[in-house]
Amino acid sequence: MSWEGLTRMTKIEVVLDGEHAPAVRDLFLQSGATGYTAVDGVSGFGHRGYHQGRLLFNDRASLSLLITVVPEDRVEGIVEGILRIIEDVHGVLFVTEVHVSRPEYFLH
Amino acid sequence: MSWEGLTRMTKIEVVLDGEHAPAVRDLFLQSGATGYTAVDGVSGFGHRGYHQGRLLFNDRASLSLLITVVPEDRVEGIVEGILRIIEDVHGVLFVTEVHVSRPEYFLH
Amino acid sequence: MSWEGLTRMTKIEVVLDGEHAPAVRDLFLQSGATGYTAVDGVSGFGHRGYHQGRLLFNDRASLSLLITVVPEDRVEGIVEGILRIIEDVHGVLFVTEVHVSRPEYFLH
Repeated sequence: MSWEGLTRMTKIEVVLDGEHAPAVRDLFLQSGATGYTAVDGVSGFGHRGYHQGRLLFNDRASLSLLITVVPEDRVEGIVEGILRIIEDVHGVLFVTEVHVSRPEYFLH
Repeated sequence: MSWEGLTRMTKIEVVLDGEHAPAVRDLFLQSGATGYTAVDGVSGFGHRGYHQGRLLFNDRASLSLLITVVPEDRVEGIVEGILRIIEDVHGVLFVTEVHVSRPEYFLH
Repeated sequence: MSWEGLTRMTKIEVVLDGEHAPAVRDLFLQSGATGYTAVDGVSGFGHRGYHQGRLLFNDRASLSLLITVVPEDRVEGIVEGILRIIEDVHGVLFVTEVHVSRPEYFLH
């Protein structure tokens, strides 16, 4: 079985205005993530914006996609923290099951 | 259980030449997506290109990665539309199960 | 069922210093991938770095995110090769189940 030796973790992805990226990064680290990846200069528009009409359409490349991978017991705290951050700003959150090698890299 | 409160959705990712990104974006929105994310300036080469030989190798950063998240009942229409778009151009399509908070943001 | 006609594959994602991206790309192709996508100019810091202290914190946009999608029988060889590459450098590897249309594009 080719996935042998891999350990299940949870990938958390957040897309939001780049100005709020530092808050997400800090939350990741304070909530037990041992690393993260950020893709800046992302465009698109938030799901809330569309509901409010095309005026909020935003194709400026001012969004950030932030990614972290954590053990399952860290997911709830991070998701709750992200929801607090994106409550008042445009942002979406996706959670995906992933598998990693070297799980000790993702643990404190 | 730390995934409590999250709702299953489907993430659709498309990688194709950036000149065709607007067609994909329009398809997403016309097919019921309420938002999308685009990462431009992506490099690589398409799977079809490799089969046709290294002459098509393309490391110019001219590709786009487009991402949307939709309820499952929107997947079929979007996938069919994407396949029509990428039939004649280089492009690949991935579908992944994700979970989101605030599912109402992804619904019309 | 809206995922009808899609074929299960495995997405392999690697984040590491951009200077090592060509080695990963070559490994992908030598190990049976028929294509890949690279997002350069990514920032963040590796999980190993954090353990070694904040001095290694790295927010320079010098990382690359490399993505490929392969049939399951290619996963083991690619994962082993990636682990050899990232043994001595900062890097993380994620494996995710995805579904694709046109599976023949991902096969030699």
